[in-house]
Amino acid sequence: MTAEPFKIGLLGHGTVGAAFAELLPERADQIAATTGLRPEITGVLTTSRGTFEEILAASDLVVELIGGLEPARGYVLAAMAAGKHVVTANKQLLAHHGEELWAAAREHGVQLRFEAAVAGVVPVIRVLQESLAAAHVDRVHGIVNGTTNFILTQMASTGASYADALAEAQRLGYAEADPSDDVNGKDAAAKMAIIARLAFDTPVHLDDVRYEGIEQITQEDIAYARDLGLSLKLIGTAERVGEGISVRVHPAFLYAGHPLASINGSFNAVTVESPAITEITMSGPGAGGPQTASAVLGDVISAMIPPASTPETTQQLPVVADAESAFYLHLEVEDRPGVLAQIAQLLGLQGASIKSVVQQGTGSGARLVMVVHPMLESKFFAAVDLISRLDFLRGTPRAIRVLDEEFAA
Amino acid sequence: MTAEPFKIGLLGHGTVGAAFAELLPERADQIAATTGLRPEITGVLTTSRGTFEEILAASDLVVELIGGLEPARGYVLAAMAAGKHVVTANKQLLAHHGEELWAAAREHGVQLRFEAAVAGVVPVIRVLQESLAAAHVDRVHGIVNGTTNFILTQMASTGASYADALAEAQRLGYAEADPSDDVNGKDAAAKMAIIARLAFDTPVHLDDVRYEGIEQITQEDIAYARDLGLSLKLIGTAERVGEGISVRVHPAFLYAGHPLASINGSFNAVTVESPAITEITMSGPGAGGPQTASAVLGDVISAMIPPASTPETTQQLPVVADAESAFYLHLEVEDRPGVLAQIAQLLGLQGASIKSVVQQGTGSGARLVMVVHPMLESKFFAAVDLISRLDFLRGTPRAIRVLDEEFAA
Ligand SMILES: NC(=O)c1ccc[n+]([C@@H]2O[C@H](COP(=O)([O-])OP(=O)(O)OC[C@H]3O[C@@H](n4cnc5c(N)ncnc54)[C@H](OP(=O)(O)O)[C@@H]3O)[C@@H](O)[C@H]2O)c1
Ligand SMILES: NC(=O)c1ccc[n+]([C@@H]2O[C@H](COP(=O)([O-])OP(=O)(O)OC[C@H]3O[C@@H](n4cnc5c(N)ncnc54)[C@H](OP(=O)(O)O)[C@@H]3O)[C@@H](O)[C@H]2O)c1
Repeated sequence: MTAEPFKIGLLGHGTVGAAFAELLPERADQIAATTGLRPEITGVLTTSRGTFEEILAASDLVVELIGGLEPARGYVLAAMAAGKHVVTANKQLLAHHGEELWAAAREHGVQLRFEAAVAGVVPVIRVLQESLAAAHVDRVHGIVNGTTNFILTQMASTGASYADALAEAQRLGYAEADPSDDVNGKDAAAKMAIIARLAFDTPVHLDDVRYEGIEQITQEDIAYARDLGLSLKLIGTAERVGEGISVRVHPAFLYAGHPLASINGSFNAVTVESPAITEITMSGPGAGGPQTASAVLGDVISAMIPPASTPETTQQLPVVADAESAFYLHLEVEDRPGVLAQIAQLLGLQGASIKSVVQQGTGSGARLVMVVHPMLESKFFAAVDLISRLDFLRGTPRAIRVLDEEFAA
Repeated sequence: MTAEPFKIGLLGHGTVGAAFAELLPERADQIAATTGLRPEITGVLTTSRGTFEEILAASDLVVELIGGLEPARGYVLAAMAAGKHVVTANKQLLAHHGEELWAAAREHGVQLRFEAAVAGVVPVIRVLQESLAAAHVDRVHGIVNGTTNFILTQMASTGASYADALAEAQRLGYAEADPSDDVNGKDAAAKMAIIARLAFDTPVHLDDVRYEGIEQITQEDIAYARDLGLSLKLIGTAERVGEGISVRVHPAFLYAGHPLASINGSFNAVTVESPAITEITMSGPGAGGPQTASAVLGDVISAMIPPASTPETTQQLPVVADAESAFYLHLEVEDRPGVLAQIAQLLGLQGASIKSVVQQGTGSGARLVMVVHPMLESKFFAAVDLISRLDFLRGTPRAIRVLDEEFAA
């Protein structure tokens, strides 16, 4: 089946634009299989390449990844006036000119999608606009800037000063050469303006958002807080206050049990509170070229396909019965020489590699508790079956899987 | 403006159906304001009330909350054949007959939505079908049964036995009188079948899912694991294995850093891993009448409105500059009599209530670190301003907000 082309005009070919141009062809076959349309980039605009009018004329949908207010605003308006759907990652544009742009989208009957503008792959826009479209939202808390969360995590985990943590973030590409809008809270403020607009169905401009950044945070603050069981994050808040709303960004301490307390490194996360649902928390990488491009692609596909269709399956993958897993193994044994060696040998014959062993108790009440590295379950259980027949074993071996060793401290 | 009616036929009026019938009128004004359509329930079917044919004839959309395979399957097929959109919360139906139902939806050009079937308000279906429609998903891990997560959390936090924790879950309404399908893993298996189908675009039937429950878990397992820094969850896994897939549910230990390790009580959570995005984790209440009804309502509204529209704002809420917050306050003071009393008095005059105070060091290097309960920021800063002028103060007071005291241990 040859799928019809779906033509995408790409405005901007920087960090995100180039990542999008790389991701799209990788996924085009799969998209063609499920939608019947094959997306392709039919024009690219940069400061040195392409003209907007030609690109517009040749596209079904326009992706805006230039950033800034102008000419991005003019291009987005012109594209919608020409009846094209638009996908953008431009939070400043929406925090300044959102109402104008959304009105134009309604007027021209086109879609204006912007998931990538707010929290990268964390689908907060879609959830607010769709899942919670009719929910009465009381409050949204978010960690919506990955740069600052990385810096604060560094300071907490390594004891680094603010300046050193910032330098490390720049070295690793988590902070720009000029990090001002990240560390002073303005980037997060623009995102919270967009979130508040959607959560409360009321106009919210960047100017409505009070913000403070993290430049004043000292290592001492973080150390004291740790003593109090708190962790420090740059938190965006959008909440109802009496008959009005409050939208703000500032550093805040969180108790260990808070759903945002465990969001570390450059990840973003958003918690939405509403009486009917209690709360939803979503987390994931908040920025980075490939991640942002993936959020852009999700929006592009949504504009291509009819809503909520469950396409035909495109594959018939075999379901495999065996799987790999690490295991915890708990054995009650008689405490006599050679016990551990025999058990280790039976495990070793099946290819198991033992990560840790703890022996507890003595005599006939002794216990061996071990964790083995990931291996095929069938082989592990074959070893356990042999172990269970050893004469020094008391009681049935107890085996429980252990997930994802990469999270071991 | 009088909105046109949007007629909903409700099949089932039990835990979820009754909660939906209660939620809908509460939200109808807001929905009418944003969509121009006023949703109303035009017929209800139970074992003692209503006839399916009459309800079908009088509805634009059918909500199926009967549960089980038949007559639910027949009703859903008949509704779609009649050109009606369908929203369902029925995981068993989809895990058994999904391909037949999705094919019927495509054939008749209607929407079949089922967010509430899998993880309650956690929007995993929407994210897999839309945000990640073209992503190459490698793996999904989920805590998709709230009953078992509640029981395991109880066992870990109170030291209760499995039997006692189950009894407590039943007492609190987190487990049914007959909890078999929850505790033996079958409920989670049905949900993982649906997730795997969407993640990998391949047919997955409940029979393809291997599952084990939590009935064999002992307090001893949990205690030993805690010593190893692990927590125990009932985990559903859907992953690629070579050229095939593996879908399974079993208890598993998680390291403390794993995004699912901190999901406690009756909450559900799902982590989706894909190379382009790294991972997304979503969490929230997984069941309960009002929560499930809210997920159903999100699907109903999605079926009513055009995709990705950002409706006009329906309100013009004032943006309030002041806000309430708890605070951490760090003061460097000279250690002499009466210092704390004077500070406490200035705070008290503004209505502050002190939650905790720690004094460190002595002489001119003494420090007071305190946390005050939530109060208006303007009042707190007024107190801090006065405190900063006290003659025994060394250095500027440092104030940082503290979020959500309810998470304090
Ligand atoms: N980077 C991220 O991780 C990230 C994450 C989330 C959202 N975003 C948003 O995504 C957007 C793009 O960010 P980025 O990091 O990809 O920016 P970038 O690397 O600076 O790239 C900007 C691109 O736009 C082009 N451009 C700039 N001004 C132009 C003009 N007047 N006419 C035509 N083309 C112009 C540039 O052309 P040249 O190639 O000729 O310089 C460049 O290709 C921004 O709105 C940003 O806020 C970025
Ligand atoms: N409960 C939850 O928290 C939850 C969470 C997620 C998903 N779900 C799913 O939601 C669905 C409904 O669950 P529920 O807990 O609300 O069930 P429920 O309380 O048992 O209610 C079932 C309703 O369906 C009606 N019904 C049963 N058989 C019928 C038949 N043959 N013809 C007409 N009506 C019939 C019942 O009528 P009577 O009133 O006359 O008995 C009752 O009103 C199930 O698919 C379940 O898996 C439930």
